[in-house]
Amino acid sequence: MKYILTIALLTIFSYNIIAQNQIKASAQRLEARIKALSQYGANPEGGVSRVAYSEADIAGRAYVLQLMRDAGLEVRIDAAGNIIGKRKGKNNNLPSIAFGSHIDSVPGGGNYDGDVGSLGAIECIELMNENKIVTEHPVEVFIFQNEEGGLVGSEAISGILTDEELSLISSSGKTLRQGMIDIGGDPNRFREAARKKGDFKAFLELHIEQGGFLDAEGINIGVVEGIVGIKQWMVTFQGKANHAGTTPMDKRQDAMLAAARFVVETNRIARSIPGRQVATNGKIKAEPGAPNVIPGKVEMTLEIRDLNFEKMLSVFEMIKAAAVTIENETGVSIRYENLNEDIPAVTDKRIQDMIAAAAKDLNLSYKYMPSGAGHDTQDMARIAPTGMVFVPSKDGISHSPKEYTSPEDMANGASVLLQTILKLDKAKF
Amino acid sequence: MKYILTIALLTIFSYNIIAQNQIKASAQRLEARIKALSQYGANPEGGVSRVAYSEADIAGRAYVLQLMRDAGLEVRIDAAGNIIGKRKGKNNNLPSIAFGSHIDSVPGGGNYDGDVGSLGAIECIELMNENKIVTEHPVEVFIFQNEEGGLVGSEAISGILTDEELSLISSSGKTLRQGMIDIGGDPNRFREAARKKGDFKAFLELHIEQGGFLDAEGINIGVVEGIVGIKQWMVTFQGKANHAGTTPMDKRQDAMLAAARFVVETNRIARSIPGRQVATNGKIKAEPGAPNVIPGKVEMTLEIRDLNFEKMLSVFEMIKAAAVTIENETGVSIRYENLNEDIPAVTDKRIQDMIAAAAKDLNLSYKYMPSGAGHDTQDMARIAPTGMVFVPSKDGISHSPKEYTSPEDMANGASVLLQTILKLDKAKF
Repeated sequence: MKYILTIALLTIFSYNIIAQNQIKASAQRLEARIKALSQYGANPEGGVSRVAYSEADIAGRAYVLQLMRDAGLEVRIDAAGNIIGKRKGKNNNLPSIAFGSHIDSVPGGGNYDGDVGSLGAIECIELMNENKIVTEHPVEVFIFQNEEGGLVGSEAISGILTDEELSLISSSGKTLRQGMIDIGGDPNRFREAARKKGDFKAFLELHIEQGGFLDAEGINIGVVEGIVGIKQWMVTFQGKANHAGTTPMDKRQDAMLAAARFVVETNRIARSIPGRQVATNGKIKAEPGAPNVIPGKVEMTLEIRDLNFEKMLSVFEMIKAAAVTIENETGVSIRYENLNEDIPAVTDKRIQDMIAAAAKDLNLSYKYMPSGAGHDTQDMARIAPTGMVFVPSKDGISHSPKEYTSPEDMANGASVLLQTILKLDKAKF
Repeated sequence: MKYILTIALLTIFSYNIIAQNQIKASAQRLEARIKALSQYGANPEGGVSRVAYSEADIAGRAYVLQLMRDAGLEVRIDAAGNIIGKRKGKNNNLPSIAFGSHIDSVPGGGNYDGDVGSLGAIECIELMNENKIVTEHPVEVFIFQNEEGGLVGSEAISGILTDEELSLISSSGKTLRQGMIDIGGDPNRFREAARKKGDFKAFLELHIEQGGFLDAEGINIGVVEGIVGIKQWMVTFQGKANHAGTTPMDKRQDAMLAAARFVVETNRIARSIPGRQVATNGKIKAEPGAPNVIPGKVEMTLEIRDLNFEKMLSVFEMIKAAAVTIENETGVSIRYENLNEDIPAVTDKRIQDMIAAAAKDLNLSYKYMPSGAGHDTQDMARIAPTGMVFVPSKDGISHSPKEYTSPEDMANGASVLLQTILKLDKAKF
């Protein structure tokens, strides 16, 4: 009898376990909600222009907030304007497991960047409700405000948002200060939104890849190893402006030629070493900028990204060395001014492996990869172990109305997100 | 007696010839007049900003007009606003020998471009007066209006100025129409300023080199073989704008890289063949033009100049061929739009040789050379045989307050100009 009972209990228990790690998110529900959310700020090209603090953003936030309430979350807007929904766990003294993303878009953006992670987070709550799962830890869903305008919401939560930044003008035309007011925050008290180390057991974010790796290779899930660092410089080429008709080719100090050779070298060097580092020259200005004048000065940006900060610096050193040759051969001087530096944010190795295990359990293919784009997760990494789940972006297109992720891919991402949450809930760290 | 008389006459005659081909312009007078003219529109850097139709231009023109009257010229302002001073010859049915230049400057210009040729032309009249020279042909001194804004005055005289051009805004902020009124012309009758083939035996212009050849090589006089042709294109590089973080180096269609390689090829090709052809990329715009976006589109100018039109076209063909390789290797398409085309204006070979002979007579070193810059002479070449005399520009600097030509060099130029006029007066063509 005792033996039979044990078997019966084991069977029920293991059945329960098998069922739980096979829970599938609803592709239909996610697709319906993506479509609903896409109405707020819909643009003629089929995407959205839902920049932070715009009317569309405010309306979209209200829609998402209602979904969160309907899912039984205890919802509040923090002092910085982030939407936070809490679900109690069995032991509410434990740190919470947090996850979420953002719903604001770039001007002329698409329907998936941020939205998949936001609705995917709510989907996890729906699945917990449907499957009567109560976690040990409390969980928190975050809808960060103004991600596209500089990770404003997650900067506030990680405690690095400054008063000065509040005066910046966002894409909506409003200052961050005014925007914060308009979405229900309080710029005089935004520091109260800051959370501290230990508040979260982990932070997770589901996001579209915004690149073409997964789509091109037909892989379901990206296990994000970290968010690349970004270093940007303004590179100034100082030559000598001169008459394009009367100055022979061998007597020129042509800043345009030096800048052009610099671009060619930047590209060659970034491709000359193994790895996924990228280097880009995105902006250029030549002076005086007339067809009949040899440019005396060119200003051009250089950006280097990689997951490894040392490698970023070494690529820059290689470019600088090549630039010395250009200086010598063109008579044009080259100098560098730092514009911006974001150090790489590495995700937690243990969480990476949980995401990979979750994908495996669900029979989904996966791949470890860096995130070339910035995300709220990089701010959250300052105060919590983090993990990110990527799903494919069709043709790698992002920040465009042409953004597309299929309902199945969204559901796969949400399913993996849920399993990662459940694994974290049981993990000892 | 008869014999003695013949010898005496021959002596007087040959003395007269020797004296006449040794007449030296006054460096002092030219320098004093350059200084006086430099007061009109003087800028703090020591040059002038005497853009056409400005108050400074109007005052400078009045000063020069008075010099012309004082030199005994019969002065008028033609319907297009050019100042023309006539000196009768022995046979006023003959076509006139014309010479001159302009006194307007670029914004932030110098004291020599145009001014040396204008005051040098008046100096020739002074020398004729002082040496009691009466030419067979009548002579005409031209002070062309608005050279720097597109050879407006000489276009009117050669009959190619159009009504449409009158609506263009000049550097002064005025339309050409209003400017023409303000300097004493009549925009409704500007076509009456046109002169026809046969009106001039020749047109001559003395000018500073605006390049560094003569100064660098220590040569006194440039015998201008012609004014180079200019072809300009807008070259459009169409790639694909993409995220600079998530798009790997080998998946890019980087319009900036294609444009950079194009600049390097343009430079290489222009230097790869013998001759004085020049090719320049002076203006560039990258879109969207953000440090963190791979440029999807770059627009850049290409300009090619040479005295030989066929060579200009062949340099362009070589660049286009190299561009096909760039297109194939970068996935960026390249197309060309014609912006401007000035065909080369070759000066008259007989007049070139007269200038050279005049320099030789005066013990001045000389060199045949092209003019890389445009001049009123190129318009006058449409209706008359032409010649140009260059004098050195220190360090080749032009269109800058740092422009400098020494009093001796100015005088050398004016002396050569006078001798060329006198040779033309006797020449049979």
